[in-house]
Amino acid sequence: MSLPHIILAAHGSRRTESNQEVRRLAEQLGAGLDGAQVRAAFLEFEKPTIADALHACGREGAESVMVVPYFLTAGRHVTHDLPAVIAETMQKHPQVKVRLLPHLGAFTDLSQLLLGRLFTTLGTPQTRQFALR
Amino acid sequence: MSLPHIILAAHGSRRTESNQEVRRLAEQLGAGLDGAQVRAAFLEFEKPTIADALHACGREGAESVMVVPYFLTAGRHVTHDLPAVIAETMQKHPQVKVRLLPHLGAFTDLSQLLLGRLFTTLGTPQTRQFALR
Repeated sequence: MSLPHIILAAHGSRRTESNQEVRRLAEQLGAGLDGAQVRAAFLEFEKPTIADALHACGREGAESVMVVPYFLTAGRHVTHDLPAVIAETMQKHPQVKVRLLPHLGAFTDLSQLLLGRLFTTLGTPQTRQFALR
Repeated sequence: MSLPHIILAAHGSRRTESNQEVRRLAEQLGAGLDGAQVRAAFLEFEKPTIADALHACGREGAESVMVVPYFLTAGRHVTHDLPAVIAETMQKHPQVKVRLLPHLGAFTDLSQLLLGRLFTTLGTPQTRQFALR
């Protein structure tokens, strides 16, 4: 069985730099997975859309696609919008299996990550400080 | 110097469960920081707002407040909205120092986290699979 194509599904922003953060991460994932096809795609504000990316996987002959929701919490984008666009788009690619992974916040121990950061910060003030007027 | 009050600043969702994910995380952080005051607060859709939380810190006599942006990427919410609401709100609490930390996605090696997850998933299909019609 061939490796699935992977879609890193992010919200998308009006800020180019924010979308670039997602694209860089997709590139890192592709490199880490030994050259697997990993694309960034966006629900709003930026192309490619999730549907664009799914269609591209179908055109490229992917046997299976894994959609990774790049979201911290399971709001409506995760629980409704992503499943809806996948179900609709994949009607045109019935030969492709799509798996929707849990959102990032669901499988990561973010409390430990944040605690580590807070302990570090409380020791070293490498943070922006507001000049209060 | 006393421990700063901490605000976990999230986007907020129309979905109660999504906001509860943030609240639970704030509780875990408070417990991990030995009972420090950690509140969840939201930019949209949910109370308390970021301004509400900042005012509460001021009323409670906090010497300093640390705002932790619970965001994966630096979109306008992180680069504009959060600094703006902090600057405006803290005019009423000039005695309180506020520090705005980098957003979560900026200080976490998310590529390693995601790669670990993808490797696991490629081995064990514990994910939702779409029944394609």
